[in-house]
Amino acid sequence: MQFELTKEFISELQECLNSNLKADLLNEVNQLHPADIADICDELETEEVVLLYQCLDDEVAADVLIELEEDVREKLLRTLSPKEIAENFIDNMDSDDAADIMAELSDDKKDQVISAITDADLASDIVDLLHYPEDSAGGLMAKELIRVRINWTLIQCLREMRKQAEDIEDVYTIYVVDKENKLIGTLSLKQLLLAPSGATVKDLYFDEVRSVKAYEEADEIASIMEKYDLVVLPVVDELNRLIGRITIDDIVDVIKEEAEKDYQMASGISESVDSTDSVRVLTRARLPWLLIGLLGGIFGALVINQYEDTLQIYPEMALFIPLIAAMGGNVGVQSSAIIVQGLANNSLGFDNLFQRLGKELLVALVNGLVCSMLILIYTMIYKDNNALAGTVSVALVLVIAFAGLFGTFVPLMLDKYKIDPALATGPFITTMNDIVGLFIYFGIGHLMYIWL
Amino acid sequence: MQFELTKEFISELQECLNSNLKADLLNEVNQLHPADIADICDELETEEVVLLYQCLDDEVAADVLIELEEDVREKLLRTLSPKEIAENFIDNMDSDDAADIMAELSDDKKDQVISAITDADLASDIVDLLHYPEDSAGGLMAKELIRVRINWTLIQCLREMRKQAEDIEDVYTIYVVDKENKLIGTLSLKQLLLAPSGATVKDLYFDEVRSVKAYEEADEIASIMEKYDLVVLPVVDELNRLIGRITIDDIVDVIKEEAEKDYQMASGISESVDSTDSVRVLTRARLPWLLIGLLGGIFGALVINQYEDTLQIYPEMALFIPLIAAMGGNVGVQSSAIIVQGLANNSLGFDNLFQRLGKELLVALVNGLVCSMLILIYTMIYKDNNALAGTVSVALVLVIAFAGLFGTFVPLMLDKYKIDPALATGPFITTMNDIVGLFIYFGIGHLMYIWL
Repeated sequence: MQFELTKEFISELQECLNSNLKADLLNEVNQLHPADIADICDELETEEVVLLYQCLDDEVAADVLIELEEDVREKLLRTLSPKEIAENFIDNMDSDDAADIMAELSDDKKDQVISAITDADLASDIVDLLHYPEDSAGGLMAKELIRVRINWTLIQCLREMRKQAEDIEDVYTIYVVDKENKLIGTLSLKQLLLAPSGATVKDLYFDEVRSVKAYEEADEIASIMEKYDLVVLPVVDELNRLIGRITIDDIVDVIKEEAEKDYQMASGISESVDSTDSVRVLTRARLPWLLIGLLGGIFGALVINQYEDTLQIYPEMALFIPLIAAMGGNVGVQSSAIIVQGLANNSLGFDNLFQRLGKELLVALVNGLVCSMLILIYTMIYKDNNALAGTVSVALVLVIAFAGLFGTFVPLMLDKYKIDPALATGPFITTMNDIVGLFIYFGIGHLMYIWL
Repeated sequence: MQFELTKEFISELQECLNSNLKADLLNEVNQLHPADIADICDELETEEVVLLYQCLDDEVAADVLIELEEDVREKLLRTLSPKEIAENFIDNMDSDDAADIMAELSDDKKDQVISAITDADLASDIVDLLHYPEDSAGGLMAKELIRVRINWTLIQCLREMRKQAEDIEDVYTIYVVDKENKLIGTLSLKQLLLAPSGATVKDLYFDEVRSVKAYEEADEIASIMEKYDLVVLPVVDELNRLIGRITIDDIVDVIKEEAEKDYQMASGISESVDSTDSVRVLTRARLPWLLIGLLGGIFGALVINQYEDTLQIYPEMALFIPLIAAMGGNVGVQSSAIIVQGLANNSLGFDNLFQRLGKELLVALVNGLVCSMLILIYTMIYKDNNALAGTVSVALVLVIAFAGLFGTFVPLMLDKYKIDPALATGPFITTMNDIVGLFIYFGIGHLMYIWL
């Protein structure tokens, strides 16, 4: 039951596949959960995946296909004809999964697969679903659901449900509609099961139902399902007609992806990668942000160059360049992360921009003064140079204050103009703060040495 | 139905509460979803929350309590006697929510509340649940579930379910146990509903069931439920006896919290905060990492100080200090983030430490050489100083390679010794890389100027 993927298992399986032996091991694989089989496939070469697929039952093969990593699936589908894809896979899938797979195909192949689908209802459902953007309610929903009419008796319900429920693994909720298919309520299986036999839907149903429109965005849906602890959410069109339902498993994926995307942005990784990706993919994801950092470093050099005279006379200033840069970067990342997370969770509260900046300034000043006092004491004791001590400590307070304000301001502005605020975290904000921090530091140093 | 919280709504409500008017507005609030009422409470002062609570129905009040922010709940509970807490709230809760709330009380108050609970079964369930660590299966599970015996007929099932199901809002799955309460399978409501009337549990039940032990950790449970698309997971003891079930809504919270914790760690924030927290809380969360950065900056100054002679003779070296520091920091954060995310998702694959470091070295060398070529060209053109150009470009490759290896190595080691690998991201890794980067840079500079 509980399967653990090991390196040994994979090599044994590979041997078995490559030697063309239909051994017990393949039967064993067929018995595993599709998610486990998908994990296995992710570790195999494409030709091996193709071989393994030939040993899987059709129903299992379809379920596994959905769970595969996108690049493994793409390679596998490339080896199959449209007819095979339609008959072996799509015909055995729920409409939402089928549409997701179809969306990954080329336009040409997509059309060919659709015409090869034998179940006409499914084909029409898939065509419907393909109209919606991938990360909208329509793109996430499945068409399969149980619907009953408000004027039905329970006996009628059960009879209809026998027809409708066949293809639906997890029912969760029965949707109550009027004769125009407008969603007016829900009924739980429990209620149905425990109701007296003469009852009608009208007696039992719950007339408050939370739904979303087809064009609602995925992150909004995730926050609704999370907030109200829903496992399933009906989707309606502009006229409140029931057109589908979204289940929590798809939303868990959305929540995970959103969080990972923000994390990767903050870490300076520009596309979704993991450590098993190729060197080429990993480099492509990481190099762009490093080039931004490089450009920032060059600007930093230009700033210092401006103050070459100051540095010639007071070379000790060079000592604290890394400190100033690091503190600006750290504070900027902290303050932008708090805003980005607040935006993602809708938990920013009601403060306006100026209240928010005011609060951040307060936090930054407290942090800045603490750090500044410590560095002042350190430099006065160990360097015995009051001008340097004054420069470093004053610059540090200002750099921390600026970095805090900038880190708060930028993601709020990006969000206002519908740009992903997570862009503002990580390398971008550290680079900007490095440059401005150096300006502040050398500017103050320059003034100090003029005055003192 | 769809409620939107506005600043105007809050001020109107506050006015209404403080003027002691039991206006329509309060009735309206009572009709809202508990999660919405909780959002409202999070915006009110403690005295106002207490006033609002007096206007809520008991059942609603209990549901709202669970959804409150922890600090708001703590303040509210402090104003109530153990008897009030038990009778108004705990008695109306599921065992898992009740135990979560109890776990937040002082030991003294906890005992008093437990003895004031009127429902003896619930009290005993809560005492049971309080034995488990908060982030284990036992700490997450609810005791309420539907269990049927394998030898029962469907009629018996329905009769028993009528008794058991009363308190359970969402049934999802019926658990099939033997006479020793050992979990042997599941039955869906759909099957029960659509089965012929003479059937027994034995004819219908599904004999494969995925379960977790009571001491399984929350993140492991989250990855199981996510991987296998489960909405509910049974919990068993060492003898496979059914003791509870975990529902997906609690796991969604775990997934969110894990992701946010990693994000905050990477951003240098040491505890869970959001922008509405007080300046004191925000400062406390941010200052520790800034002090690490400060210490790093001081070490950086010491390193540069070591090479004061070199810097005196070749002051241009100061220009590229920010560049070296920034690149080391960025690369370190990138590589550690990839490892941390891989560990969190169990997606690291089978490479051993040396293969992993080898791959990272390759990525780092490609990135390093690209960046290094660019900076070489820049410095040769604009600074016309071959020694400087050589120093910067050679140092950059080495710094990027070191930062990549270090960023890969540290989280893997932390994880091996059961320390949260996310500690290695953010300020810690940037600070370490700053210091080592400066050593490399000035070390090479020193050699270059000796040789050339």
